[in-house]
Amino acid sequence: MEKRVQDYTQDILAVIRSNTSPAAMSSKLEDFHANDLADAMPRLTVQERYKLYRILDINMLSDIFEYTDSDNAAEYVKEMDVKKGAAILSRMETDALVEVLQKIDKAKKKILVELMDDDVRHDIEMIASFDEDEIGSRMTTNCIIIRENLTVKQAMNSLVEQAAKNDNISTIFVVTESQKFYGAIDLKDLIIARQDKSLEDLVATSYPYVYAEEDIDDCIEELKAYSEDSIPVLDNDNRLLGVITSSNIIDLVDDEMGEDYAMLAGLTAEEDLKEPLKESMKKRMPWLIVLLGLGMVVSSVVGVFESVVTQLPIIMAFQSLILDMAGNVGTQSLAVTIRVLMDESLTGKQKLELVFKEMRIGLCNGALLGILSFALIGLYIYFFKGKTLVFAYAVSGCIGVALLLAMLISSAVGTCIPLFFKKVGVDPAVASGPLITTVNDLVAVVTYYGLGWVFLIGVLHLAG
Amino acid sequence: MEKRVQDYTQDILAVIRSNTSPAAMSSKLEDFHANDLADAMPRLTVQERYKLYRILDINMLSDIFEYTDSDNAAEYVKEMDVKKGAAILSRMETDALVEVLQKIDKAKKKILVELMDDDVRHDIEMIASFDEDEIGSRMTTNCIIIRENLTVKQAMNSLVEQAAKNDNISTIFVVTESQKFYGAIDLKDLIIARQDKSLEDLVATSYPYVYAEEDIDDCIEELKAYSEDSIPVLDNDNRLLGVITSSNIIDLVDDEMGEDYAMLAGLTAEEDLKEPLKESMKKRMPWLIVLLGLGMVVSSVVGVFESVVTQLPIIMAFQSLILDMAGNVGTQSLAVTIRVLMDESLTGKQKLELVFKEMRIGLCNGALLGILSFALIGLYIYFFKGKTLVFAYAVSGCIGVALLLAMLISSAVGTCIPLFFKKVGVDPAVASGPLITTVNDLVAVVTYYGLGWVFLIGVLHLAG
Repeated sequence: MEKRVQDYTQDILAVIRSNTSPAAMSSKLEDFHANDLADAMPRLTVQERYKLYRILDINMLSDIFEYTDSDNAAEYVKEMDVKKGAAILSRMETDALVEVLQKIDKAKKKILVELMDDDVRHDIEMIASFDEDEIGSRMTTNCIIIRENLTVKQAMNSLVEQAAKNDNISTIFVVTESQKFYGAIDLKDLIIARQDKSLEDLVATSYPYVYAEEDIDDCIEELKAYSEDSIPVLDNDNRLLGVITSSNIIDLVDDEMGEDYAMLAGLTAEEDLKEPLKESMKKRMPWLIVLLGLGMVVSSVVGVFESVVTQLPIIMAFQSLILDMAGNVGTQSLAVTIRVLMDESLTGKQKLELVFKEMRIGLCNGALLGILSFALIGLYIYFFKGKTLVFAYAVSGCIGVALLLAMLISSAVGTCIPLFFKKVGVDPAVASGPLITTVNDLVAVVTYYGLGWVFLIGVLHLAG
Repeated sequence: MEKRVQDYTQDILAVIRSNTSPAAMSSKLEDFHANDLADAMPRLTVQERYKLYRILDINMLSDIFEYTDSDNAAEYVKEMDVKKGAAILSRMETDALVEVLQKIDKAKKKILVELMDDDVRHDIEMIASFDEDEIGSRMTTNCIIIRENLTVKQAMNSLVEQAAKNDNISTIFVVTESQKFYGAIDLKDLIIARQDKSLEDLVATSYPYVYAEEDIDDCIEELKAYSEDSIPVLDNDNRLLGVITSSNIIDLVDDEMGEDYAMLAGLTAEEDLKEPLKESMKKRMPWLIVLLGLGMVVSSVVGVFESVVTQLPIIMAFQSLILDMAGNVGTQSLAVTIRVLMDESLTGKQKLELVFKEMRIGLCNGALLGILSFALIGLYIYFFKGKTLVFAYAVSGCIGVALLLAMLISSAVGTCIPLFFKKVGVDPAVASGPLITTVNDLVAVVTYYGLGWVFLIGVLHLAG
């Protein structure tokens, strides 16, 4: 199947570049999805965009802005009349609006904000007051809120009234007189209810909610689990502040997994194509410097075994094999542990079980690969290095055992380090792939050369 | 902030274990979210669950089943009367229903399916007919579909009628007489429209859609971009088959990113805590065997340079440093490239730009770290290894240059390999972290020992 069949951009450009009347053009453009219109915007000339700002109504333009990245949106606001700009921004989801404002210079921003309604200004300040790790910074105030003492008919009327401004209507939130969260009504239930039914029967009073100050990391799994279109966000006095919508959740999941992914690769944050060189360097440098430092420690430990290598140079060739396998196994255990820690909160017993399970996997995989290496490397040394069979299999035996031990210990290290990080309150994803790899290098070097020293040189007195 | 304030499980258990009348208990339980009820279910005894199956109505039970993992759901179906089981399953989202059926033994499954309505059976067969990579396998048939020639009032009536069975009501899909997809109406617009308005004005006829046979990977980014509650899924004759809901999209994003994450860690798939040892081993073995093979290739290349090490054992100690840094830099470039490839379809020119950008980053970071290593390692060799200053800085100079070169080449390799994989139609995530690391080991070994051989031994005639 070829990639994506529809591309509405050309159709949209054709409509805008045609000579139809404003009313006909506006009605044609309303048939398109705001996301497709947003995609077409950067392809227009400034003159064509001027035309669009006049032809489309404020709601339509604010919908398009929702799908425009904040840099472009800030650019469009600069192009248009400041009053129109303020009106469009006012109708956006508050979190998106805050993002666009951050991209506009101070003087203009001040004018824009002054032109907005008091309640929009209040919403902006509230969202901006939360830390970016807190769920409150990602919510929107676009939701339908009604009082708990209404009839079904009154509730429906209130919904119709609010729907013009707020389009997240699939769940209706019910509050008490003092704005405390009371419960939620599924719009479906309201629509099919008889007009004279009491609203009370429709309200789910044990509806899930989050507090605005909760950490995103702590509640994201639960938000996902409810798979609701919107989850209410409360302040510490249980007043309803806004909602987290399913599209917010998609963004959160994307961000959170993207962060774990980046960390596993030794990046401090995700990058995209447009990023300037300096930014990219900054995201990669911190880990590289830490790893260079750790690498030097590994090197000085290897240096201790210089005499082993001088006496038995052949074992040097297999150092990278042992180190790489230890690193790989450690990274596997690490990745599994990080995901498990993200999805569930473990009891002490479960943590121990996890460590033992990872070690068992390390042991079993290590045994299999150890035997495989023992057989193959022995043959290799015998045939290609011109050594005796005994010598070849003594060396490959040492490699097999070192591989087994290194894989066993690496699994344990790859599991324990993120568990420890979590325990002391550090994001376990920080124990990233490269860090684990380097730590396990140390383990593997000591195991391998230590074994070689004791067993091959000390016991068997091999040389050459 | 402590983790998650609410936990409804205890409240739910208390209600179920109380001695209230069935009607009172059912009304109390309806106040809870189906997800919380689903969480409480495994904590009940079988007897208590029997009670629940009798007390709750079919719709409520099927809601709970939506939030139950398919293993547990299959267990509950076995516990209850087969007719009730079939009724509950019939009301579930089709994709979830198909998953539960897969966990039930053949004989029982056959009876259950026979007890279901024709249209449910038809939906099951349709969803099961798609490959698991195709978007059709993840859709649900739970959506509101109306004909295009209705009035606003008729449309509203049709909605109320269908809403009892289908709860994804926020978008209403419009089809022609032959079931071909015509457009979509936002429920909000329908609710606030005047009763006598023509439906035609409300329909967005250029609404986004996907074809059921499209690859999930190909359309996931677009589905995310529209951030709609539901996107229609069409067959190849443009007939509406079902929808992808935002909660489906959350799952898809989670799966897709989880897969990339697992691959980067050298796992063939994501694992969870409950997985048996054998399954875990199977997911890790394939990569480990490939990597062992590659590691042996690296080792035999290192073996070629045995004579270099014999003459100059000190350079052996820094092998792991160069190899690790090359691996780290390559993994960084790889991770960035995979994400970029996932998000956008690149032109040839953009691909070249990406490779050059990554190489520039590799060069700049390599230069910085090369100079740092040159300075520090020189001092280390001079002070701790008792060599002359000239010897120390000759060796550390060789290490610095090797580091720079290895990082430059590794960036290029880390970018080109996933680009190449994409080109030939292999998932670029397959060029996982461990694979890139091992390939870059080869690059680094040749660079490092090659330089040492030519420069230190060939030109400077160092030894010892």
